[in-house]
Amino acid sequence: MRQITGLSNPTVKYLRSLRDKKHRRREQRFMAEGLRLLTDARETGHLPEILAMAEGRERHPLLDELVAATEAAGGDVIEVSQDALTKITGKDNPQAVCGVFAELDTALTRISRDGAPLVLVAQAMRDPGNLGTMLRTADAVGAGGLVLIDDCADPFSVEAVRASMGAIFTVPLAQARWEEFRKWLREGPGQLVAASLRDPHDYRDAPYAAPCFVMVGNESRGLPEEYEAECDLRVTIPMLGRADSLNASIAGAVLAYEVLAKLR
Amino acid sequence: MRQITGLSNPTVKYLRSLRDKKHRRREQRFMAEGLRLLTDARETGHLPEILAMAEGRERHPLLDELVAATEAAGGDVIEVSQDALTKITGKDNPQAVCGVFAELDTALTRISRDGAPLVLVAQAMRDPGNLGTMLRTADAVGAGGLVLIDDCADPFSVEAVRASMGAIFTVPLAQARWEEFRKWLREGPGQLVAASLRDPHDYRDAPYAAPCFVMVGNESRGLPEEYEAECDLRVTIPMLGRADSLNASIAGAVLAYEVLAKLR
Repeated sequence: MRQITGLSNPTVKYLRSLRDKKHRRREQRFMAEGLRLLTDARETGHLPEILAMAEGRERHPLLDELVAATEAAGGDVIEVSQDALTKITGKDNPQAVCGVFAELDTALTRISRDGAPLVLVAQAMRDPGNLGTMLRTADAVGAGGLVLIDDCADPFSVEAVRASMGAIFTVPLAQARWEEFRKWLREGPGQLVAASLRDPHDYRDAPYAAPCFVMVGNESRGLPEEYEAECDLRVTIPMLGRADSLNASIAGAVLAYEVLAKLR
Repeated sequence: MRQITGLSNPTVKYLRSLRDKKHRRREQRFMAEGLRLLTDARETGHLPEILAMAEGRERHPLLDELVAATEAAGGDVIEVSQDALTKITGKDNPQAVCGVFAELDTALTRISRDGAPLVLVAQAMRDPGNLGTMLRTADAVGAGGLVLIDDCADPFSVEAVRASMGAIFTVPLAQARWEEFRKWLREGPGQLVAASLRDPHDYRDAPYAAPCFVMVGNESRGLPEEYEAECDLRVTIPMLGRADSLNASIAGAVLAYEVLAKLR
């Protein structure tokens, strides 16, 4: 472990730069915060390249294990001031520890068509909190992965990683343009399903078939018409109130749990 | 309509102060942003006391209607600079219009036990986005309302109002301490249900009964043990992955849609 002082230290600057998508992309690195998240990462075989901790933090056996494992794997463990950690994380009240990880592979080949009855698909999902929540839901339903279509929020942003509650490290994640995804999907078995108002089935009584690809659209615009038309099955979720849509990650979860109940 | 110039104008300062919970509480006023949200408010009988618009905004027939209705009801319609609107909303890219509303009544008497098979209940929900999403889900399932127990995020914060997508104006909302809620609940019919690991029923096969009060707990701690013990029915949602919980607003929605399917 080494102590680092000052806010202009190159490592502090580097860590801070990873808050920015452009830098993450260039460095192919991302940051995860908090002992719980970093422990989840460690337990699933992901150790940080750099582990930064605040001076004067409370001791914790899980932190000791994390430090030992990171150092054993050749990682850089540093101690910085509370001020520097605030700078790095951009939060007034940062978690006492954060780590830098190599970005994960997000090729479509990561997605598993067998071994799980369903896969989640998000199209142009712009909110990193929703995206992280989709990852968390994908973990809970035992999905074969989450496919991000078109211009989604960055799944490696601090906000998405946080909302995923560790699922960023466990759920196979793919990023693709629509045409690329469509082509890949049609090369093997897979039923594409989305909520829709176009001659839909009631979502409680629809002929789901594994592997079922459950797709949700952009938060404000929903799915493009062409994408809906490509679906093998269109379903409708009751909307009994004034609004005509659910939050995108909510719609995805309600559908995913229905599919799970039918295909498990 | 009147023009207001300068950032130190008392009305601009007043509007800006409503971003702060303390001021909202004192003034018993809250702010909603965006033409869509304000139109939802108008269509459900809620007009702003003050309507603030940016200079140089694009014209829109719905905005014209909103201005006319606000003025007809004796409201104050003001035009401010883009800079002032940025100050007011605290966002770099604010919506072109925002309005100030009188806070809504949040007594338990607002909640309807009949007319709807279920009511949502959130305990110590700290994230305003989750809270607004719960309101949106409550609207979608036609719930008799949302009850906020103990120290929840402020439902009248800009973030919660935004995430509610207008449901803040349509869904009966109550705020109460646990003891107060428990007493009120037991004075009439009502089945209290929560996700739990304590001798639970499978959530797909549980004896739900209307009016069903679907309760979710705090984002990181879940429900206190005493609250779980008070439940008439405890259910479990499958967790097939590594994590042991869902996002709180997701868990609430999955349960609420299951209850709706069974009791509708």
